[in-house]
Amino acid sequence: MQFIFDPRQLLHDPELYFRRGAFIPHPEQPQRAILVRDALLAAGHTMEAPRDHGLAPIKAVHDDGYVDFFMTAWPDWVTATGTTVPAVPNYHTDRRNWRVPKGVIGKLGYYSTDTSCPVVEGTAEAIYWSAQTAIEAAERVRSGAADHIYALCRPPGHHAVQDASWGFCFFNNAAVAAHHLLGRFQKVAVLDVDTHAGNGTQDIFYRRGDVVYVSIHTDPSDYTPFFMGYADETGEGAGAGATHNLVLPVGAGVDDILASYDAALDIIRASGAQALVLSLGVDMAKDDPLSLVGMTTEGFRIGAARVAGLGLPTVLVQEGGYLGPSLSDNVVAFLGAFEDARRA
Amino acid sequence: MQFIFDPRQLLHDPELYFRRGAFIPHPEQPQRAILVRDALLAAGHTMEAPRDHGLAPIKAVHDDGYVDFFMTAWPDWVTATGTTVPAVPNYHTDRRNWRVPKGVIGKLGYYSTDTSCPVVEGTAEAIYWSAQTAIEAAERVRSGAADHIYALCRPPGHHAVQDASWGFCFFNNAAVAAHHLLGRFQKVAVLDVDTHAGNGTQDIFYRRGDVVYVSIHTDPSDYTPFFMGYADETGEGAGAGATHNLVLPVGAGVDDILASYDAALDIIRASGAQALVLSLGVDMAKDDPLSLVGMTTEGFRIGAARVAGLGLPTVLVQEGGYLGPSLSDNVVAFLGAFEDARRA
Repeated sequence: MQFIFDPRQLLHDPELYFRRGAFIPHPEQPQRAILVRDALLAAGHTMEAPRDHGLAPIKAVHDDGYVDFFMTAWPDWVTATGTTVPAVPNYHTDRRNWRVPKGVIGKLGYYSTDTSCPVVEGTAEAIYWSAQTAIEAAERVRSGAADHIYALCRPPGHHAVQDASWGFCFFNNAAVAAHHLLGRFQKVAVLDVDTHAGNGTQDIFYRRGDVVYVSIHTDPSDYTPFFMGYADETGEGAGAGATHNLVLPVGAGVDDILASYDAALDIIRASGAQALVLSLGVDMAKDDPLSLVGMTTEGFRIGAARVAGLGLPTVLVQEGGYLGPSLSDNVVAFLGAFEDARRA
Repeated sequence: MQFIFDPRQLLHDPELYFRRGAFIPHPEQPQRAILVRDALLAAGHTMEAPRDHGLAPIKAVHDDGYVDFFMTAWPDWVTATGTTVPAVPNYHTDRRNWRVPKGVIGKLGYYSTDTSCPVVEGTAEAIYWSAQTAIEAAERVRSGAADHIYALCRPPGHHAVQDASWGFCFFNNAAVAAHHLLGRFQKVAVLDVDTHAGNGTQDIFYRRGDVVYVSIHTDPSDYTPFFMGYADETGEGAGAGATHNLVLPVGAGVDDILASYDAALDIIRASGAQALVLSLGVDMAKDDPLSLVGMTTEGFRIGAARVAGLGLPTVLVQEGGYLGPSLSDNVVAFLGAFEDARRA
């Protein structure tokens, strides 16, 4: 399969993650993308670089102030604090009354919801090119140049809401890709198979009817992202009925997961979507360091073939999947099985 | 002046504050209350202990789930994480879609907006007795037993919103006191002279007409609490016109500050309030470690006399004021001048 990758995505390199009162090694490492890239090349997939599509496709789904903030957050932070310690937010808004403050310290909190997205020197460039990678892939499908293509995006995107970073994610690459596809298709489906609910993608499209969002993920009631991703969240207004959260219990196995794939694919078939964005997290793998369910490499292969069976033009966007032993195997297996099914 | 104090408030003893990407010594130390207590006793003020008024007066202004959460957060945290590291939140909600999650990790983020309120073993007891201290003082005024009285509360309260901790504050002692006074008075004013906007008190009464909130504070646009405390926030619904934010520029001096006191007192006189809660932060002191303005001990004395001149039954509630050289001098000066003016 053709895939898009840009090495500038590696420049976001946070060493530590402040979590549960202490710093731990940050799970979202550049090495993730390096391993996947190298494995895909070794398996004969074809890598291409993205063109620069600018900020407009990103701002089409994100708040302008949010996007602009992260483009200059690092130098602003260094100036305001006089340090080069990674910029981790510590002040956030409540749920009722707030406005955007003036300075970088307040803005960092305003535009963030957690501590997992430290801003470092290379962050702006990395998140920009992660989004460009998704846009390039979407543009290939939108223009008809590709039927399906994989965007090796990193940092991931599906937790990023309209105006706040969340869960390692700054720009919502899959949402940007889905919106971009609307230039050609009337209705687009996003299928999110990352083990964490894609609260960002849900948020962005929650009141829209042109993007159907279907997510399979681990029960969020005591697991990231905690506050969204429940089965009874189904959309509002024009988006009523267009959000579908298929919640897996902790400990779910391959059969449970594949049954959820089938249910998700039925929803997408019934939706009339003409194109698909697949938020491809592989952190359901049972050996993924963040997983609480038990997917296998063979399970990913089966799931990929079923997704391919939709027959829809598809942009596959990398989401999570951390430094466990099967990370690159699972991506290679998924893309290989998807392509094999399409050729069959 | 009579004052209420309970030593169990000292049990909340967070050593460190995660701020701007790193840990610093926590400014909100038990020593603050010890210094003020000892200085008041040395100056001849009379200390009494609070009775136990239970959780109902606290839940009258805070969300039930919020109050209950912090009463058991520490043992729940220890069980969930297997550690006794102070419980600092790192996941928060966005501004649109969310629900209360099931586990302590998610709830800690849901019920917190920043990292300045670490939960440690003694936190529940300390915040409970800090609120009881305020309720006891309010009850003395409500019952007519006292005309004015000082609640030496700690941790402070005025940043705590209905359902989230903020800025060293868990339970909003001043808001609890103000609501309690409504048992006797039809309308109560809260005057907040802490150098930080009392976003919590504002939030709690923003849609209510029975409590007038007037705050004098440093411009929040690049200063805690960042997201609220602007002059054009004036209340909504039944509370329309009942919130007044008098914003001081960074660098304001004694004359500017006292002019704001005068403006605030005019608002309170015109409001028809029958009783007053004074949120007495003394962190406008020019030598306070968190101050960006220049109040003096003599300035506090003048301000106190003017507040006393309202002639309203008054509960003075301690808010901020950190470990600078004039901390206890400023509280002693304020209370002494208040009492002298009342006697005159």
